[in-house]
Amino acid sequence: MDPSDIKALTFDVFGTVVDWRTSIAREARDVGRAKGVEADWDAFADDWRRLYQPSMAAVIEGRRPWTKLDVLHRESLETVLGTHAVTGLSEAEKENLNRAWHRLDGWPDTVPGLTRLKRRYVLATLSNGNVAMMVNMAKRAGLPWDAILGAEPARHYKADTECYLITADYLGLEPSEILMIAAHNPDLIRAAKLGFRTAFVPRPTEHGAGQTTNLKPEQDYDVVAWDFTDLAQKLGC
Amino acid sequence: MDPSDIKALTFDVFGTVVDWRTSIAREARDVGRAKGVEADWDAFADDWRRLYQPSMAAVIEGRRPWTKLDVLHRESLETVLGTHAVTGLSEAEKENLNRAWHRLDGWPDTVPGLTRLKRRYVLATLSNGNVAMMVNMAKRAGLPWDAILGAEPARHYKADTECYLITADYLGLEPSEILMIAAHNPDLIRAAKLGFRTAFVPRPTEHGAGQTTNLKPEQDYDVVAWDFTDLAQKLGC
Repeated sequence: MDPSDIKALTFDVFGTVVDWRTSIAREARDVGRAKGVEADWDAFADDWRRLYQPSMAAVIEGRRPWTKLDVLHRESLETVLGTHAVTGLSEAEKENLNRAWHRLDGWPDTVPGLTRLKRRYVLATLSNGNVAMMVNMAKRAGLPWDAILGAEPARHYKADTECYLITADYLGLEPSEILMIAAHNPDLIRAAKLGFRTAFVPRPTEHGAGQTTNLKPEQDYDVVAWDFTDLAQKLGC
Repeated sequence: MDPSDIKALTFDVFGTVVDWRTSIAREARDVGRAKGVEADWDAFADDWRRLYQPSMAAVIEGRRPWTKLDVLHRESLETVLGTHAVTGLSEAEKENLNRAWHRLDGWPDTVPGLTRLKRRYVLATLSNGNVAMMVNMAKRAGLPWDAILGAEPARHYKADTECYLITADYLGLEPSEILMIAAHNPDLIRAAKLGFRTAFVPRPTEHGAGQTTNLKPEQDYDVVAWDFTDLAQKLGC
């Protein structure tokens, strides 16, 4: 791949750009402390995230009209609070905890890498997170996006092909002019099938120290980089 | 209006943020020079822009499916080239001239003002320009948007109310939490009717030295500012 053929970079966000697990566990722990509730907060974060795919399934399969991820997260939160016997939260407290997904921290290399990449490329999100979530997260974490795209503007969650192709259409580009960046093999394999260029950036502690998935590239991607500064280096930024 | 009640600023772009007339006339003049064609290039820019509202009317009235502004501009360009007897352009040259709308310059206060405003507020476009146009324009002119919203993500052109309300929904905000900024009274009057807060920033040379419209506020807006640095000052940024 010649980096000069690439006009835009699209990013998976949860896990790839931000460390959702540490951020969610921290906010949940703070809530528990305030409420005098003890729980395994890493497991709480994992369980909440585990409901993510099932919660989108009804939308993807057409059994439910378009629904923002904020709403799906809020529904899943009820389940997770029950599982971990976290009680006594007011509606406002639950809403605030749900908004923890708007306050995720980048990985240490995220902002330095994106800042270098932005000099040469259009940087856009291609995430299942809704626009307000992505905007608020970017504002707090300093993520220098040029455009917030992905599921909500496309009205299709990944892995629907529309999510990828409508994003390319918004950018006014062919998929072959776009480099999709993700820490997850399935996301890149789907993007590659649609003609996107692909870059794998592993995040080996996304799911904690015992992570067993997505440690290695499972296909021959255009770029494999250790982190976003390495990605910038490999793209000549 | 208390500035701390405002969470996001949404901006009309053509005229309000960028000086489309000078930019388009300059690029058209360059094409004319290269092709050895003489014309009144300011009038060329004015005539091209004059076709803007009529070109959207078919979409707004439902007689035509959603069509990006890039496509409408390209159709209008054929008319304007005819009117001004500009001939001999290849398809690639026409396409490049059409993309002049992606290369509009900000007013002198635009970038300094937006940079100050961005420290405190989410800044989003609420323009009829399509996403690629807004992204490319921002990249070149240094416009520090947090989100590119407006007509294309809403699939409705202004003045449809959906264009404003879907933008608020993307931001996850009530209209009353959003300050709409425009140099055009009709845009602000419509936004105010929908509950948006409003700021008028006149651009008295948008249409050239002889401009007679939108020189003064025609309603009691929340803010009237001379330019974007004055707006930043008035919002305490």
